Amino acid sequence: MKLLIDEKDRKYLTDREEFHTGLGVVKIVENAQKVTSHLGHDFSVLKPRLIDLYEKLPRSGSVLLKRDIGFILAYTSVGTGDIVVDAGTGSACLAMFLANIVQPTGKVFTYEIREKFAEIARKNIENAGLQEFIEIKMKDITQGIDEEEVDLVTLDLPEPWLVVQHAYKALKHGGFIMSYSPYIEQAKKTVDSLKEASFRGIKTYEVFEREMEISNKGVRPSTRMYGHSAYLTFARKY
Amino acid sequence: MKLLIDEKDRKYLTDREEFHTGLGVVKIVENAQKVTSHLGHDFSVLKPRLIDLYEKLPRSGSVLLKRDIGFILAYTSVGTGDIVVDAGTGSACLAMFLANIVQPTGKVFTYEIREKFAEIARKNIENAGLQEFIEIKMKDITQGIDEEEVDLVTLDLPEPWLVVQHAYKALKHGGFIMSYSPYIEQAKKTVDSLKEASFRGIKTYEVFEREMEISNKGVRPSTRMYGHSAYLTFARKY
Amino acid sequence: MKLLIDEKDRKYLTDREEFHTGLGVVKIVENAQKVTSHLGHDFSVLKPRLIDLYEKLPRSGSVLLKRDIGFILAYTSVGTGDIVVDAGTGSACLAMFLANIVQPTGKVFTYEIREKFAEIARKNIENAGLQEFIEIKMKDITQGIDEEEVDLVTLDLPEPWLVVQHAYKALKHGGFIMSYSPYIEQAKKTVDSLKEASFRGIKTYEVFEREMEISNKGVRPSTRMYGHSAYLTFARKY
Amino acid sequence: MKLLIDEKDRKYLTDREEFHTGLGVVKIVENAQKVTSHLGHDFSVLKPRLIDLYEKLPRSGSVLLKRDIGFILAYTSVGTGDIVVDAGTGSACLAMFLANIVQPTGKVFTYEIREKFAEIARKNIENAGLQEFIEIKMKDITQGIDEEEVDLVTLDLPEPWLVVQHAYKALKHGGFIMSYSPYIEQAKKTVDSLKEASFRGIKTYEVFEREMEISNKGVRPSTRMYGHSAYLTFARKY
Repeated sequence: MKLLIDEKDRKYLTDREEFHTGLGVVKIVENAQKVTSHLGHDFSVLKPRLIDLYEKLPRSGSVLLKRDIGFILAYTSVGTGDIVVDAGTGSACLAMFLANIVQPTGKVFTYEIREKFAEIARKNIENAGLQEFIEIKMKDITQGIDEEEVDLVTLDLPEPWLVVQHAYKALKHGGFIMSYSPYIEQAKKTVDSLKEASFRGIKTYEVFEREMEISNKGVRPSTRMYGHSAYLTFARKY
Repeated sequence: MKLLIDEKDRKYLTDREEFHTGLGVVKIVENAQKVTSHLGHDFSVLKPRLIDLYEKLPRSGSVLLKRDIGFILAYTSVGTGDIVVDAGTGSACLAMFLANIVQPTGKVFTYEIREKFAEIARKNIENAGLQEFIEIKMKDITQGIDEEEVDLVTLDLPEPWLVVQHAYKALKHGGFIMSYSPYIEQAKKTVDSLKEASFRGIKTYEVFEREMEISNKGVRPSTRMYGHSAYLTFARKY
Repeated sequence: MKLLIDEKDRKYLTDREEFHTGLGVVKIVENAQKVTSHLGHDFSVLKPRLIDLYEKLPRSGSVLLKRDIGFILAYTSVGTGDIVVDAGTGSACLAMFLANIVQPTGKVFTYEIREKFAEIARKNIENAGLQEFIEIKMKDITQGIDEEEVDLVTLDLPEPWLVVQHAYKALKHGGFIMSYSPYIEQAKKTVDSLKEASFRGIKTYEVFEREMEISNKGVRPSTRMYGHSAYLTFARKY
Repeated sequence: MKLLIDEKDRKYLTDREEFHTGLGVVKIVENAQKVTSHLGHDFSVLKPRLIDLYEKLPRSGSVLLKRDIGFILAYTSVGTGDIVVDAGTGSACLAMFLANIVQPTGKVFTYEIREKFAEIARKNIENAGLQEFIEIKMKDITQGIDEEEVDLVTLDLPEPWLVVQHAYKALKHGGFIMSYSPYIEQAKKTVDSLKEASFRGIKTYEVFEREMEISNKGVRPSTRMYGHSAYLTFARKY
């Protein structure tokens, strides 16, 4: 799988040797870093990083934004060797970011009950070459978590509170739970269930980002801003 | 090294067997998850995760906030096996987050010219058990980068533009550079030097986070908010 | 009443002819714009504008921030001649901003049940010279509103929903209601009661502001930021 | 001039007696508050407030957002009787908000050099019935300000620093200047010129607002957010 980037920074993901774009047909030569289309346009050719796959792979719904994924990564300091339980899988975006980090000694177990989503996720994971480090489990996580001594549980579910007790049991002493919810009522109910389950250090955050436009005309923040994705609730077992 | 957490969620880091706190003397028993001080107060005992060390280890100045570290991690999708060049080391916070992820096959080379900072960094890295995966180089990175085929260069320097050409040379095709600057003039000058050095996909961001206070009284955002840390400029070689 | 401003931009409000400060005794000469203390420090002397009184007059609790007051003024386009009903009075900050605008043909009726607050409010209003255009009513607004054909109702109350029906009756066709609530549950309950009372154009906002620090060292946003004051809910009768 | 609002809260401004909409023809009966179109759809009929004209009147370019207008109103506590100098007029949005407040004893003098803009502004001002309180001056404000003892100068110009000295001369002791600039370089240059002109209390702000979506599904912030309009720089003569 190759990433092509054209002169206007548009990105294309392909595993073909010949790729058709609006700027002409591109033949991807082994090991070439630059290629020219038959219409004379330059393309950079890259081995895609995970972030490229994140941006271009098929999605089965909305996915976590980079700012939220990053906050989860930093807040929990997830690292090589960690065991993570994740639900629902969705397009596997978060699972892939986690597996990219916890490999080769750690593993991500991701629960999904919708076969259609799991299928897309499976293909995405294979394209990222992470299949060895992510296990998709076709199980309803509200019925229980199989894993033990888990470092991190990440939830992107409509009713995360149904998983909180299971997560407490599955987590190792010192482990983190993170729940992602667009509505404040969900965050509130999750916090209440975390308290009840004896979780500690319960905190809820919103993360924002704003681009700065730096050009010859001057510097100004972008007028475009994504106002809200979700509330991120964190807690810990100790 | 153990992390103690008292009943009010205050954290203490110690490598002693007997630890004195305002809530009494705590004897840390091997493998105990809870201990009681001689005054009858409960403490949780944890094997610290990196995030605990980040919060409690000595600092030689201000450190990157979690929200910024996270955004860097997600934006570049740094993962196991990546080679990272970092400067200046400071307290090694960012270097440790990166090493925690790129280990065991990747490595972080962090440049520092201030011996005092390097010393603190060295101790922090040892306490985190990451010494095998971080090499502190007592060199001025504005004079050049020794490493080649690097995946990511992270800069937290007063004059990052002096390193941009070196970074371009050191990076592999497809690799990222990230520069962290509190002042907008620094970001502007960095962007200009990135353009000159043929970097592409140049973007600058600010990241914010706000805590939500969820209690029995109701839900409201916190009045405390950290208004600004720095502008994060990203670019890529392709 | 005079406003003194010292060399470090600290402000003092006084109606004495001789005023003692840490920088010496200041004698306020009629019509002087600058005076010098007996220790040789310069002070500017101003006829205070309302914003100066807002900043320096005694407060009986927390007051609305400028950003919120401003958003209310713009959102409703309150202007000369408008009739406003306000509750609770508190320190009369919002009432004074409104009266400063609606005078001389309009009027603000402000409801307060706490005699102590009304007393402070009364003094503040007199110091601002707005007593002719603000009537403090020692009545419980949840029991009803006396006024009719009102242009704007502004509520800063713990249970604004108890006033919504009264407000609908009091407002003229096309008039606005605004309710200020720190907790999201209050905003939610207010919105529900507004719907029930046939109000239309119901919208809830949060307003933020961030200072930019522009100095010789460069330009950067301030690290200090006030994260939350309240949710502002607006609706209209039509 | 009447404001019609249909069942979906869409607004229409008209001075005709018969008005054609996608929901049918509406006959506007004198003093009616509700009318029904010939297709059976209900419309509310309102005497428009200034905010309605602001939203619906023709614009000659982008206009100041409510949040910025409001912040200016509150920060300077502009009130009845104030004398304001404004430039450039643009669509006269800010001038109309100011005149709506300073009337009947105050006045707004607004400078514009583009005849086309002045024409639109003139019509907007007449539709708002504010022509007695706003004087459009077809003059280049960088050449000087005719007025004296001014309470407030508001600038929305590409090069506001060219007006700063004139503004200092025109302002009364204690008066405010406000400058609105999208680019940070403009704000910086304005601040520098304000310092040079002996202005004091120089501050620069950005104002944001975010809508909360409160529905039966729950409460969440809106994903739509306007990331940046301009930097607002304030200073004062004292």
